[in-house]
Amino acid sequence: MKRIITLLAGLVLLAGSTNAQELSNFSFGRGPKVVSPEINGDKTTFRLSANYATIVNLVGAWMENPWGPGVPMTKGEGGVWEITIDTPSPEIYTYSFIVDGVTMSDPLNVFVQRDGSRFLSMLMVPGERTENYGEANVHGTVAHRWYHSEILGMDRRLTVYTPAGYENNPKKKYPVLYLLHGAGGDEEAWSSMGRAAQILDNLIEKGLAEPMICVMPNGNPNQAAAQTLGLPVKDMDWRDPANRNKYVESLCEEIVPFIEKNYRAIAKPASRAIAGLSMGGGHTISASTLYPELFDYICPLSAAGAMTEEQALALKKAGVKLYFLACGNTDFLWNGSLELKKNLEAVQMDNFEFFESDGGHVWSNWRLYLNTFAQKLFK
Amino acid sequence: MKRIITLLAGLVLLAGSTNAQELSNFSFGRGPKVVSPEINGDKTTFRLSANYATIVNLVGAWMENPWGPGVPMTKGEGGVWEITIDTPSPEIYTYSFIVDGVTMSDPLNVFVQRDGSRFLSMLMVPGERTENYGEANVHGTVAHRWYHSEILGMDRRLTVYTPAGYENNPKKKYPVLYLLHGAGGDEEAWSSMGRAAQILDNLIEKGLAEPMICVMPNGNPNQAAAQTLGLPVKDMDWRDPANRNKYVESLCEEIVPFIEKNYRAIAKPASRAIAGLSMGGGHTISASTLYPELFDYICPLSAAGAMTEEQALALKKAGVKLYFLACGNTDFLWNGSLELKKNLEAVQMDNFEFFESDGGHVWSNWRLYLNTFAQKLFK
Repeated sequence: MKRIITLLAGLVLLAGSTNAQELSNFSFGRGPKVVSPEINGDKTTFRLSANYATIVNLVGAWMENPWGPGVPMTKGEGGVWEITIDTPSPEIYTYSFIVDGVTMSDPLNVFVQRDGSRFLSMLMVPGERTENYGEANVHGTVAHRWYHSEILGMDRRLTVYTPAGYENNPKKKYPVLYLLHGAGGDEEAWSSMGRAAQILDNLIEKGLAEPMICVMPNGNPNQAAAQTLGLPVKDMDWRDPANRNKYVESLCEEIVPFIEKNYRAIAKPASRAIAGLSMGGGHTISASTLYPELFDYICPLSAAGAMTEEQALALKKAGVKLYFLACGNTDFLWNGSLELKKNLEAVQMDNFEFFESDGGHVWSNWRLYLNTFAQKLFK
Repeated sequence: MKRIITLLAGLVLLAGSTNAQELSNFSFGRGPKVVSPEINGDKTTFRLSANYATIVNLVGAWMENPWGPGVPMTKGEGGVWEITIDTPSPEIYTYSFIVDGVTMSDPLNVFVQRDGSRFLSMLMVPGERTENYGEANVHGTVAHRWYHSEILGMDRRLTVYTPAGYENNPKKKYPVLYLLHGAGGDEEAWSSMGRAAQILDNLIEKGLAEPMICVMPNGNPNQAAAQTLGLPVKDMDWRDPANRNKYVESLCEEIVPFIEKNYRAIAKPASRAIAGLSMGGGHTISASTLYPELFDYICPLSAAGAMTEEQALALKKAGVKLYFLACGNTDFLWNGSLELKKNLEAVQMDNFEFFESDGGHVWSNWRLYLNTFAQKLFK
């Protein structure tokens, strides 16, 4: 304890000279520095100080079974467990340690993504696939803002990305992408797991995407916001048919007008895109069939959803500039996506693209899809 | 695995009807629901599923030694470890489990605060002390925005809180509080650990504080932003006297003008406040002595810093509407704070208040200080 106090005092004394520690180096002087994870070209090492543990496993999203049991680590000097693996192919992966059967994140890794209620350590392997996932040289603003929903009966929080240059071009108006999360997610899912701000920053910096506003609402209609304290969760009966489409109604009748009133958004179908993954893909399909004239760009991702011929024709008639349907070919919703594909092809939907990727119902695919379709919007 | 897939498929099928899970209830159907933490009046229970662990301890910020070893939990039915303690007095506490010697957060608790590089589970005990720490009925906007620092040679990120009503009163101008973090923190420290947005929301809703903008920069001058990937950390020699005050210079000569240009801020000393904890308290003292005419409200928190008589007199002459010096009486910087108190009293600093609290160098004190001095600003 004395050592900590001495170190803290030292740090504070340095305050006058504005000396500071890099975040991940702030170790309170607790002995030799252990690093985890450490990427060395085609080898990557993970480490955990756990002198009294009996079994420590590493489990990661690159493994065939990312739920466990994972691979055993080896206890070495000073009680530090270690494993070196072949560096997985370039991608962002989440991983955990399983210490005597208990799953935990890597305490030495400051990069953490929140996936719903789980906090997971993050490994980014550099390469072509991930070149738009790190920080760009230009940066939009990411704001958490509240709007009032009359339909859902509460104030609710949403995340709004405005592109670099938004504040300095006070007369310019922008198109808007509404980007929806899946079940278990919330209004922070796309900005945390999805790296949406980084992907858009990079694409915009490179001239590959139009500067756009991106709105990431909370798709859980009984919830005001993620991780709030003291806000009641609304007790609505969602099986009641009257409530069936409440969230999509709120999105189209409240959020879209709120954004178009409060931001310099171009209020036209040709400047509105809607995209969503899994449950958010369901919301995307519902929004486009219930409000066929609202969005000209429609992108359900890893989603299943039937569409009647009548609905598909109404959508086609309203005008579709891009219908981008994406799914991984090992996704459990692959067949459902093929069904929707059939519905859309049956009416020869204009500008329909089916994007097949490897893999399943995972964030690596959703980042890939965003990085792909964002380049096709508003052009 | 099959069960998970079935459940996921079920969730996705529900997407059309916009059914969703509350964040903390999204448990993938993994057996009976274990709850942790659970506050039942004057008793609070913590639980962890850890069938193969040998020793599980609970360690929390309410304990005399919040670094450990903590108190032992007891293994019960189904491998669930449990402990029931007397509910600590109303406050926000962080806590961890120590599983066979390894510290981890509570996987069942979705409320997590990031303290620098550590992610800690959060327990909020309701009461008078915490009444402004939960969500208010009105909400400001919290934005992460980038500015260019010529002095530090990079684009950098800061957090900006604009109060409820800011967007709907396009002609109204607001005073600004610059709120600085300590060593190991970053531009998210005050909004995460400090609950700054909630505290200001509540005070403003109750009419106890003036609606104000609150700017929370990153006080580590070699760092562009917290938790970025792909941004180099600047290699500056901070022992070089030429670099000594670079961050404070950037704050006063770049951030203040940036905010006053980009927000509807009142650009007058009487509408500028500066406050900071620990290292940020050092920055506060440096900023006020190097730029005595910039801020009329000065609040070093849990900080030590000498001030010459000349500096104190210059500050007094420039006009001080509030000098709020706060420290916990068991803080290792208590004596340093008393030194500064003496310097200020020696010149009979105008509107000087010394705020003594119990406890030490901890966030419970910094929240209390913000909740206290924010009510005294700009009045």
